[in-house]
Amino acid sequence: MKSLDALVSRLTKLPGIGRKSALRIAYHLLRADSSFSAALAESIAGLRGRVKTCSGCGSYTEEDPCPVCADPSRDRGLMCVVEQPQDIEALESTGEYRGVYHVLGGVISPLEGVGPQDLSMGRLLDRTKALHTRELILATNPTVEGDTTALYLVKLLENSGLKVSRLALGLPVGGDLEYADRLTLARSLRGRTPY
Amino acid sequence: MKSLDALVSRLTKLPGIGRKSALRIAYHLLRADSSFSAALAESIAGLRGRVKTCSGCGSYTEEDPCPVCADPSRDRGLMCVVEQPQDIEALESTGEYRGVYHVLGGVISPLEGVGPQDLSMGRLLDRTKALHTRELILATNPTVEGDTTALYLVKLLENSGLKVSRLALGLPVGGDLEYADRLTLARSLRGRTPY
Repeated sequence: MKSLDALVSRLTKLPGIGRKSALRIAYHLLRADSSFSAALAESIAGLRGRVKTCSGCGSYTEEDPCPVCADPSRDRGLMCVVEQPQDIEALESTGEYRGVYHVLGGVISPLEGVGPQDLSMGRLLDRTKALHTRELILATNPTVEGDTTALYLVKLLENSGLKVSRLALGLPVGGDLEYADRLTLARSLRGRTPY
Repeated sequence: MKSLDALVSRLTKLPGIGRKSALRIAYHLLRADSSFSAALAESIAGLRGRVKTCSGCGSYTEEDPCPVCADPSRDRGLMCVVEQPQDIEALESTGEYRGVYHVLGGVISPLEGVGPQDLSMGRLLDRTKALHTRELILATNPTVEGDTTALYLVKLLENSGLKVSRLALGLPVGGDLEYADRLTLARSLRGRTPY
């Protein structure tokens, strides 16, 4: 069936959806209430029109500036640098952070042809000046690319007088020493916290 | 973000999509080419309008009757009874089967309130008469419900003079005796084929 095949081939372009999952979804849509298909299609079609980029932090938002940038109770002296907008959601869910954010829009990755000029680093410097930032928390992922990007930023900010920190590495809460990988365990030893 | 949350909540209603996967898909759609979102939305919205039920076998099709029912080279004397339209795709992919199909539209499941009257059993009897069916292959799933449904059909067809068979149970090709479950191994012993 052409229309089923077309849907399946489009669904398989989504992350985490293989051919079997796509077929399951397509058949589910055929059985489900047709108002559901219509609502789902509308959500997808309208998303890009309704969601824009925050002129402040660079995150996704429906209103510019985004709720975090617009919130007067947020500590503007504290800025957390993340790779992607979705990282902000993860940090916000902790309820621990009361500063503002800055989205780099990726990481330095020579293999994928992404250099510092492709990330919003110039705008980061401008914002730290405009907002009189005291401290910058580098929250790029603990991967080779994330570490490289963080290190690049540390060098870039060397003479800025900014306090720069990085998210702690160590054992996950509820984790098991026995199953922790060697590198994580080494980092949690090195970063041990005194009582 | 309201529009992102709406999309995520709709995506999580799809089979196999949890909140994390839905978020990943939503952010992917925000980054992806907007023509892709439009095409995907159109595929979903248009699916139900383009796909109908075959007046013969009851499978999904874009043209009625479906390609299998319309194919004159198919053996009309042989009919394979399946639970769902997607089972036909699996059987067709074997390239082994040259008969026609009949979709029951489910299985007998007292727990879910599905009885024989909710399945297309009357139409199955009518079709076997109209097509002068010689043999009926019961290809319901090898589950409690699938077996119950097959047994019900066997009773129903007892005096019809039809030859009724059931798909063989046994070890999967490439499988490993050591890891086979007890019931499957027992069935493969009972159904052993002589050289």
